[in-house]
Amino acid sequence: MASTPHLPASRGLDALFAPRSIAVVGASHDIRRIRGRLLKLLIDGGFGGPVHPVNPSRAQIQGLRAYPSVRDLPEPVDLALIAVAADQVMEVLAECEQRGVRAAAVLSAGANGVPVGERLQDQVAAFARRTGIRVLGPNAEGFIDATTGLLATFSPTIETLPPRREDGTRGGISIVSQSGAMAFALYSRAHAEHVPVRHLVSTGNESDVELLEVVDHLIARGGSRAILLFVEGLHHPERLAPVAARAADAGVPLVVAKVGRSTAGQRAAVSHTAHLTGADTAYDAAFRRHGVIRVDDPEQMLAVAAAASAGMWPQGRRVAIVTTSGGAGGWAADICEQAGLDVPAFDEAFKRELARVVPDYGSTENPVDVTARVAEDGGSTLLAILARLGEASGIDIGLVIMSLVAPGRITSIEPELKALMAQAKRPLLFHSPGAASPDERAALARVGTAHVELRSFAFAMRALDDYRLFRERRQGRHGAASTDRTRPAMPRLAGQGPLDIAATRALLDAWHVPMPPESLATQADEAVRAAEAMGWPVVLKIASPDIAHKTEAGGVALDLRDADAVRTAFERVMASVAAKAPCARIDGIQVQKMMPPGREMVVGTVNDPDFGPMVMLGLGGIYVEVLRDVVFALAPLDAGEARGMVDRLAARALLDGVRGQPAADVDALVGLLVAVSELAAAGAGEIAEMDLNPVLVYPAGQGAVVVDALIVPQPPAMQAQDKQRS
Amino acid sequence: MASTPHLPASRGLDALFAPRSIAVVGASHDIRRIRGRLLKLLIDGGFGGPVHPVNPSRAQIQGLRAYPSVRDLPEPVDLALIAVAADQVMEVLAECEQRGVRAAAVLSAGANGVPVGERLQDQVAAFARRTGIRVLGPNAEGFIDATTGLLATFSPTIETLPPRREDGTRGGISIVSQSGAMAFALYSRAHAEHVPVRHLVSTGNESDVELLEVVDHLIARGGSRAILLFVEGLHHPERLAPVAARAADAGVPLVVAKVGRSTAGQRAAVSHTAHLTGADTAYDAAFRRHGVIRVDDPEQMLAVAAAASAGMWPQGRRVAIVTTSGGAGGWAADICEQAGLDVPAFDEAFKRELARVVPDYGSTENPVDVTARVAEDGGSTLLAILARLGEASGIDIGLVIMSLVAPGRITSIEPELKALMAQAKRPLLFHSPGAASPDERAALARVGTAHVELRSFAFAMRALDDYRLFRERRQGRHGAASTDRTRPAMPRLAGQGPLDIAATRALLDAWHVPMPPESLATQADEAVRAAEAMGWPVVLKIASPDIAHKTEAGGVALDLRDADAVRTAFERVMASVAAKAPCARIDGIQVQKMMPPGREMVVGTVNDPDFGPMVMLGLGGIYVEVLRDVVFALAPLDAGEARGMVDRLAARALLDGVRGQPAADVDALVGLLVAVSELAAAGAGEIAEMDLNPVLVYPAGQGAVVVDALIVPQPPAMQAQDKQRS
Repeated sequence: MASTPHLPASRGLDALFAPRSIAVVGASHDIRRIRGRLLKLLIDGGFGGPVHPVNPSRAQIQGLRAYPSVRDLPEPVDLALIAVAADQVMEVLAECEQRGVRAAAVLSAGANGVPVGERLQDQVAAFARRTGIRVLGPNAEGFIDATTGLLATFSPTIETLPPRREDGTRGGISIVSQSGAMAFALYSRAHAEHVPVRHLVSTGNESDVELLEVVDHLIARGGSRAILLFVEGLHHPERLAPVAARAADAGVPLVVAKVGRSTAGQRAAVSHTAHLTGADTAYDAAFRRHGVIRVDDPEQMLAVAAAASAGMWPQGRRVAIVTTSGGAGGWAADICEQAGLDVPAFDEAFKRELARVVPDYGSTENPVDVTARVAEDGGSTLLAILARLGEASGIDIGLVIMSLVAPGRITSIEPELKALMAQAKRPLLFHSPGAASPDERAALARVGTAHVELRSFAFAMRALDDYRLFRERRQGRHGAASTDRTRPAMPRLAGQGPLDIAATRALLDAWHVPMPPESLATQADEAVRAAEAMGWPVVLKIASPDIAHKTEAGGVALDLRDADAVRTAFERVMASVAAKAPCARIDGIQVQKMMPPGREMVVGTVNDPDFGPMVMLGLGGIYVEVLRDVVFALAPLDAGEARGMVDRLAARALLDGVRGQPAADVDALVGLLVAVSELAAAGAGEIAEMDLNPVLVYPAGQGAVVVDALIVPQPPAMQAQDKQRS
Repeated sequence: MASTPHLPASRGLDALFAPRSIAVVGASHDIRRIRGRLLKLLIDGGFGGPVHPVNPSRAQIQGLRAYPSVRDLPEPVDLALIAVAADQVMEVLAECEQRGVRAAAVLSAGANGVPVGERLQDQVAAFARRTGIRVLGPNAEGFIDATTGLLATFSPTIETLPPRREDGTRGGISIVSQSGAMAFALYSRAHAEHVPVRHLVSTGNESDVELLEVVDHLIARGGSRAILLFVEGLHHPERLAPVAARAADAGVPLVVAKVGRSTAGQRAAVSHTAHLTGADTAYDAAFRRHGVIRVDDPEQMLAVAAAASAGMWPQGRRVAIVTTSGGAGGWAADICEQAGLDVPAFDEAFKRELARVVPDYGSTENPVDVTARVAEDGGSTLLAILARLGEASGIDIGLVIMSLVAPGRITSIEPELKALMAQAKRPLLFHSPGAASPDERAALARVGTAHVELRSFAFAMRALDDYRLFRERRQGRHGAASTDRTRPAMPRLAGQGPLDIAATRALLDAWHVPMPPESLATQADEAVRAAEAMGWPVVLKIASPDIAHKTEAGGVALDLRDADAVRTAFERVMASVAAKAPCARIDGIQVQKMMPPGREMVVGTVNDPDFGPMVMLGLGGIYVEVLRDVVFALAPLDAGEARGMVDRLAARALLDGVRGQPAADVDALVGLLVAVSELAAAGAGEIAEMDLNPVLVYPAGQGAVVVDALIVPQPPAMQAQDKQRS
């Protein structure tokens, strides 16, 4: 975890995304048609290298010499953009191989009404594997690269809203999407907000080139201030960790929309594409683990993009609000605090400082009411206040609300504002309570900031601050010495039934998961000796691989305080089990030191097919069963992540000292979670699930202990599959 | 509650908001200045009656004859728009009185840099009281009436974005705001969304005319499909009930932004205006009681406005999504379900029906993926699908996602779409995943629907469906026979200390609040006789007005099972109290039948200064104390509202049959809440607060009972204040 995991280099993507020469297969002269628009955009965008239309019926297309087939191309091009009917795709690809084409993009919409089927997907995948030629799609809507003017797409959005001249040069974000429609929808929203889009890639059905590979390629390319991902399901979830690590190293946040939180959303993703939506809980855990910012609507996504693109990185969550309207300021404060930001009161010194520039009858409290009169002095008051806001201590974020924003008002002070934004020590973003005009948005973008809506602004600042904390923790882990604890060897378990008591004990002991003293006895006297050794009182539990529900079988006796009680109970348990489960194999009776009551918790692990072992934590009893207060995280956990799990419990406050109870030993619980998670990670191929229930957590300093444990090995098939993946 | 409460008619507001003649006091010839713009907008808007500028220095202003003073006006006008320096306002008002002016609006921004002070506010209030002349403001930014073209404001927003010709004629919403900036900000957002604004009123500092009065006036005027309110604090919270009732009778939802959820928001509202922000919990309870839709951001507000204005009233919350992009459809489904809407699977018959029109390779599941190809057939497929969506059963709302919406595509089928929208049995709203252009918004508005963003769409549909349910419940109450229970007389309590046991008992008994059998004993034998009469086991509790914490004083003995136990405990309690609270007055010892364990809950009442008695409900123990799982509602409650409180508990599921426990007697809890709320309502002037803790709720059919109760009367001062209000 501490160092960046290895990822196979994103082989051959330069030929695809940074080609020196391009063939457009299926190019049309009719620029109103998709196959004509594809060529037209390529020409209009100003791609620097040679472009060769391929079409059997014309010698010249859109002013360029055309070739009847790929075989006839005058040179082996880097990239073939393939816009032919689906049933001709494989033939064209074969020709590409013969002619030495290095990469291809299969654009579905050129498929002439014949859709992309699973058969074609498989054929393309096999072709790419066999030839080493990288293929984007099928069913991709292409890509754009604003740094080179390469517009390799037929999207009408790009025709209507081509990248602005400056988009490839100043910062900007990139978009990678499995949905072509969403790729260009996000592009058009970014365009409207004057957020430059550096790269856009529609990955389509991902027979070969897939989303995370593209992300990795774009990180290596550099320049993106954030990468926006629209995901239906990851074909290579195991690549998330290394790619996210590389993004974190580069300081490029990944901002993800992942469809499938709801059953209807999953229905949509499964029914319309080749992507499988994984269990949403596992995706959530994986995104949290790897510092990926998950967004729930387009507004959140664009707000994070706009802030990151403008370099608006908060160093905390204290917001100062400056407003021309007290009403709007109050509403903004409510929204900020609802979203988890603080709108703190200013200290007296700063209020005195503000009083020198805030107009009479305004307010120097936070929100600072500068009144509508700041609009009347040509901007000097606004600039004076913003300069103080940019310098002040105790503030992490400035939000400027101008109810009278008009393009002239910004443009008349544009140089001063631009200088001020460049010097400000913190994000200063602008909001108009009324409808913000395109001119206002453009002017704010020019001075180096952005127009924001309140709710998505608050989300974005919170998310980017969380991302900062994630990177700091990650940096800390890089520096930390690795644990000295020797990793025990993992026994082969897959294919076995649930582990018996001895095996369970051995496994948990080896991974330092705390359990009460216990011993297996086959005779009453043996049980008494064991009890005397561990101290009174004790508990007896039937030890049988065939009895899952011990209590129901009469297989449990609690609170035994002396030798006679143990003897009586031993016989009673044996008799009851013999009567109720006559065919069960009996290993003996487990003698366990009876633990005093503590706070009951439940810890478990499951294996997600995409992301491997996950740890579950919940408060015991009704909290888990009725209120569903459980949290998940990917294994293995470090102590910080384990503590984060505890803190995410809705009923977290119950672990503090409440109602006369002392605070619980959260440190011990954290240690236990880490140990369980390490066992789960090491046993990914062997252990299907663990159920540690109850886990008792004692007052601070007194530890935590697993009282009962059920460990279910992987079925043999699972083991095979898991080995294949790794 | 059942019938619409009485409200004094909104006296004199016709002269203010529907004047036949207007004087503009302080009018300027310079249309770049505020006082010039005021006159210009009045002239441009096309107000039908005479307009008289008043200005001592010119004979003619903007082509109209001007008069040196109000005294010189040629006729007693209905309305004087006053835009003079603040220190001249009272003089002008005095002249208005002399000349027979019927109403005035004091617009602060004409105050020449001199702000509105509290003194002027008080003077204006006194003037209005004395003369009966209604005054809007001071510090109002005026109002507009799109139905008559009356633009009585200096707002640059109205100059830039005047009402559209059709805005006064087709539906539309109205805006009433205490913040002038927010009034016109919301106006400009509505304008951008093509939501017609019928009336807009900026009420300013509300020395006389206040927000709820204006709302009442607008309801009486008719035509508004929703009224949007921006509120910092209500000056007459007692008017909310009657005004909201009138709105509900008329079917006009009130959509409220109320500043002050956060401490910073309250700071803003208090510091910049004359308004006090009341306790947010009480406002929340009051809004819920009266069916007022509270919004948390401008996007939510505009989405409700757009839907209501277009007549998009859902009759349930089942959404069918039709989308040109599977990715966008999946995301929309996630957002809808997160917001509490359903995206159900379709039945087979409807899927077969859809299969006749959905293109091959689309999906007839919900979300329906019609693929981008519907854009290629001139709209016929889209119309066919929408027609089926408008007719189908099992659907309440249709959401149409068009990733390729272009103005031409809507306009080319505008007549068909308009006819279809008019016939649809349910809301059909449109969303563009990309940035929606003004032309798209305009085209959608023309055909009778609206463009929506996903999150605010989901909020709006949920809110309007909740409003429908509110009105249905309200209708049910109108029809229901009033309860036969005789209202007991409320004793005078204010000014007393906490009630003693006998008084508490008498009060709760009179209001049919269930308590265990109990009796007061001053001697041990008396206690034994009482216990024998009520049945074993019993509990003894010290009865003293001076001892709040009985347990700490040794004043409680539990689970006494026979006469000896009672005698012993009686002496022990007396001795302990004598030692620990030697000065306490002792009324005796309360003998109470010991109730078997039940689910512990807490019920309480408090008196809000704005909205009067409120009932609090929480689950007992840690749920209230640590997890803060409590809900509030205004008293009195009917059974539906009481049940609503129970259902709003986060831990509501604990009252179902869980973990082997039988389901709790929620009906009995509801009855208890209703009884307590009726007592609190009747005792508004006498009771400051009640604390019923614990309330034990037994399994279904076995009732609920108040085990301990503390009733604190109003202090004398509070009583006086309360009487003054009523």
